[in-house]
Amino acid sequence: MRKPGRPAGASANPARILAAARDCFTESGYEGATIRRIAARAGCDPALVHYFFKTKSDLFTAALALPAQPPVLVADALAGGVSGVGERLVFALLSRLDDPSARGSLLGLVRSAITHEDAARMLREYLTTEALAPLAAALGVDNPALRASLAASQLMGLVVARYFVGLEPLASTDLATVAPMVGACVQHCLTAPLSGESE
Amino acid sequence: MRKPGRPAGASANPARILAAARDCFTESGYEGATIRRIAARAGCDPALVHYFFKTKSDLFTAALALPAQPPVLVADALAGGVSGVGERLVFALLSRLDDPSARGSLLGLVRSAITHEDAARMLREYLTTEALAPLAAALGVDNPALRASLAASQLMGLVVARYFVGLEPLASTDLATVAPMVGACVQHCLTAPLSGESE
Repeated sequence: MRKPGRPAGASANPARILAAARDCFTESGYEGATIRRIAARAGCDPALVHYFFKTKSDLFTAALALPAQPPVLVADALAGGVSGVGERLVFALLSRLDDPSARGSLLGLVRSAITHEDAARMLREYLTTEALAPLAAALGVDNPALRASLAASQLMGLVVARYFVGLEPLASTDLATVAPMVGACVQHCLTAPLSGESE
Repeated sequence: MRKPGRPAGASANPARILAAARDCFTESGYEGATIRRIAARAGCDPALVHYFFKTKSDLFTAALALPAQPPVLVADALAGGVSGVGERLVFALLSRLDDPSARGSLLGLVRSAITHEDAARMLREYLTTEALAPLAAALGVDNPALRASLAASQLMGLVVARYFVGLEPLASTDLATVAPMVGACVQHCLTAPLSGESE
């Protein structure tokens, strides 16, 4: 039974598209893996990819089974304004990753990026296009792109220290205590004067 | 020909001690790998280990061929006082790691810690005992241990984003520009009021 609106001549199913997307993202990076190329690999029409997975960003998070969509986290955090955006980002990320059953795929992506250049490129292009660019555009401060990439590095460090290395007391401090502290640091990095400062 | 002061009955050479140390640190962690155990593995007297490698921390950095000794970085940065310690730490770390020929072993340690629990434990125990404890003890603020581990997470994130993932513009911004910015963030994390703050 065809769903209403489903493109005619559609033969591939979502699972086949997801597998093709995983291969293409890994081989060609986030930028190089176009919907057209993924569709060709899955043996279907590009319209069918758009039909099942609205945007390339949605397809990426579905293909990698990520527990959180960085572009959505950024958009949600920015919806409350630039003030406090750091804490909202940290809280959203940690509340998802503190659930052991949910964090496997995201930790796997970080592990891949550290051990394989292909995966590093894929993660770099995805974060830059879909999360850091909109974050930087909203800041309204000096060096927005550098600040956004620095904030992302802080979140990566948080993931590495809390979930991989298990650095204490950071690793076992509860979310309610650690999120405001880390959030204040991320906020500082995003919006405070940073050059030549010494407290 | 015996060096003056070299313990009698010494049979092992430094290379053999270093190999034994690498094995012991990986198997037993930084805490469990005692000088006595390393000496037994190398087939020599513990005094000989102390003779060649003054402290366990020195032996660790020599065994892993690290380009920087975190305890020395921390001690040097603290020698100038708590004010500005963040920037001095970041500058010292990045100035070593921006040299491609020097950073291989440290990046290898980070990569191991992310892929193998044994290496994660070794790195965690080493950093906690030799770098974070003295840093926390010097701060004179609330939550010193949590702040020190959070600052370490920021430095880990910097290493991951700049050297593994290649996140731009953070990855290619020159040291003179990036060190004060990252340093200000680390300093904030170490000494500023952090709870409930929103800038």
